[in-house]
Amino acid sequence: MRPQRSWVVLTDGYLTSRNAKTAHGVIRYSTDSIAAVLDREYAGSSLAEVLPGLGRDAPIVGSLGDALGFDPSSLLLGVATPGGWMPEHWRAWMIEALEARLEIANGLHRFLRDDPELVELADRNGATLWDVREPPSDVPLFSGANLDDPRPVVLTVGTDAAVGKMSAALELVAAANAGGRRAEFIATGQTGIIIAGWGIAVDRVISDFTSGAAEKLIADAGKDSDVLVVEGQGGLWHPAFAGVTLGLLHGAAPHVIVLCHQAGRTAIEEPPYTKLPPLPEMIEAYERNAATVRPAKVACVAVNCAGLDDDARAETIVEVENETGLPAGDVMSGDAPKLWAAVDAALP
Amino acid sequence: MRPQRSWVVLTDGYLTSRNAKTAHGVIRYSTDSIAAVLDREYAGSSLAEVLPGLGRDAPIVGSLGDALGFDPSSLLLGVATPGGWMPEHWRAWMIEALEARLEIANGLHRFLRDDPELVELADRNGATLWDVREPPSDVPLFSGANLDDPRPVVLTVGTDAAVGKMSAALELVAAANAGGRRAEFIATGQTGIIIAGWGIAVDRVISDFTSGAAEKLIADAGKDSDVLVVEGQGGLWHPAFAGVTLGLLHGAAPHVIVLCHQAGRTAIEEPPYTKLPPLPEMIEAYERNAATVRPAKVACVAVNCAGLDDDARAETIVEVENETGLPAGDVMSGDAPKLWAAVDAALP
Repeated sequence: MRPQRSWVVLTDGYLTSRNAKTAHGVIRYSTDSIAAVLDREYAGSSLAEVLPGLGRDAPIVGSLGDALGFDPSSLLLGVATPGGWMPEHWRAWMIEALEARLEIANGLHRFLRDDPELVELADRNGATLWDVREPPSDVPLFSGANLDDPRPVVLTVGTDAAVGKMSAALELVAAANAGGRRAEFIATGQTGIIIAGWGIAVDRVISDFTSGAAEKLIADAGKDSDVLVVEGQGGLWHPAFAGVTLGLLHGAAPHVIVLCHQAGRTAIEEPPYTKLPPLPEMIEAYERNAATVRPAKVACVAVNCAGLDDDARAETIVEVENETGLPAGDVMSGDAPKLWAAVDAALP
Repeated sequence: MRPQRSWVVLTDGYLTSRNAKTAHGVIRYSTDSIAAVLDREYAGSSLAEVLPGLGRDAPIVGSLGDALGFDPSSLLLGVATPGGWMPEHWRAWMIEALEARLEIANGLHRFLRDDPELVELADRNGATLWDVREPPSDVPLFSGANLDDPRPVVLTVGTDAAVGKMSAALELVAAANAGGRRAEFIATGQTGIIIAGWGIAVDRVISDFTSGAAEKLIADAGKDSDVLVVEGQGGLWHPAFAGVTLGLLHGAAPHVIVLCHQAGRTAIEEPPYTKLPPLPEMIEAYERNAATVRPAKVACVAVNCAGLDDDARAETIVEVENETGLPAGDVMSGDAPKLWAAVDAALP
């Protein structure tokens, strides 16, 4: 079993914003404890009051000193900042954390180990700096080795970025394990890695090694896992991420694919706002590209229905099922067992 | 104008091997001089005797000391080694080169600047270590900025790796310029960068930044160039490289695409030996993926006919033209003007 952490989750005013995606994911899915949330904007409230949907409670505090009162092991920098920028006033909190021997987990592109003051302080206090996105030094080039691995692989892919690929993978794993399987979540992004305690941020490896990184993840997965559910990244129609998406698809070499889609989204959310093809075309594109390494079918569609009421959600899911001819469902509304059944039936 | 170099080209026994692709490319296409080739296997012969097809002559010597007699400015490590490994006996030559104040250009994945002894020696002698694959520190994320650039962009893409995408780009540029255009070659790989004197090895940037790197190359191209011909990388059916290929396609956002193909190749040459789809399908795949950012047509097919006699070459080219409905030709056999005419006609 991996080490169990007790987190101070730093959200710094962004607790309710999409920028706190990492914090939200860890709060919702990690088996670690949440000692406290550090957010001056919401200090004094509780996590369950501010974000009841995350299913956990913890005190929200306004200073690192207050957080230390809840006996944490680790400080999570839980806010994604554009371009990897880290606000200067976080430094005082990080220094205080290291002096209290806390580990610091950093999911940003910029690494803590490149900051001599923090490195020195961590060394002096026996504290750990965990740059979550830092790839291992032994990522191989793609070799095709996965094709000889007996364990079936499932990959969640997306019609765009930020549609719920990680959540779908985690919910599918939970549904599979509830049904008696030994499914393992394979993390490919910073939030997933913090949740799983290991993984590789495939968007942070040298581009030539993207598919090799995915291969290594499969090779390194638990030997007693009987199905591996890999977290997808990006989307084939998002030009900032499509290369990573394709490298991950080829390296993971899934047997079964789960398409993740945001209800109602018809174009990618960032420049150049590419119009999305119809769902059947997107399914066909993923299947065609997967076949370069191993033929794989999309078994079902995970539809992210955030913001829809029950009626609209039910209607959307029926529409997606009619359009694709595949089972569809919203994993955040209890449909993970239905989707897992479709995946399981398609596994070799 | 960029600095002019006078190269000692180190090929170390591989002068006639495909491993010396970088050496061959620089000898054939660079506007720099070739002072000497350093290859103990062929020492005493001349380059024109051993490789008449490259169109240049230079003495072949067996020691760096002998090479220094030809007054070089720079030592080129001209052999690609699998995984970026550098033979230990090159070190003595590199030390000798630095002591003679030569620049060293290194196209391998492993960097010279990570070798403290070489860095110290270079500093002491005022010599330069050029790690050609080292990306600039300011590679941006994809933004779509290229879409506002008025200069038309041409991209060479491949049905597989190592089919002649760089040569096709360079020959098209030469044909365009012979016809009065101000075409510029945009380098995306180590050999191309050494030839052009600048560029970014897009397979060496962090995967998240692949398309941003391609965008930066377009932005940094000469302001007086009236058409940019970008060197493609990899191929959509090669799982080790497809992510880079797609990121480059999206970032370069070409107006016109040139498909490069090795005559007779029906599967990729490395594991998992993916069978290549028919040419029209491959053309459609590149056009469909390009359209994510900007619609672009494949204007012609550059067929690498190395090893074929004149009759077989002519027959192959007719076959490709019939199969694709597009002009085809072998740039190494004088067909670049024909292919350029097809590109030029398709430019906006």
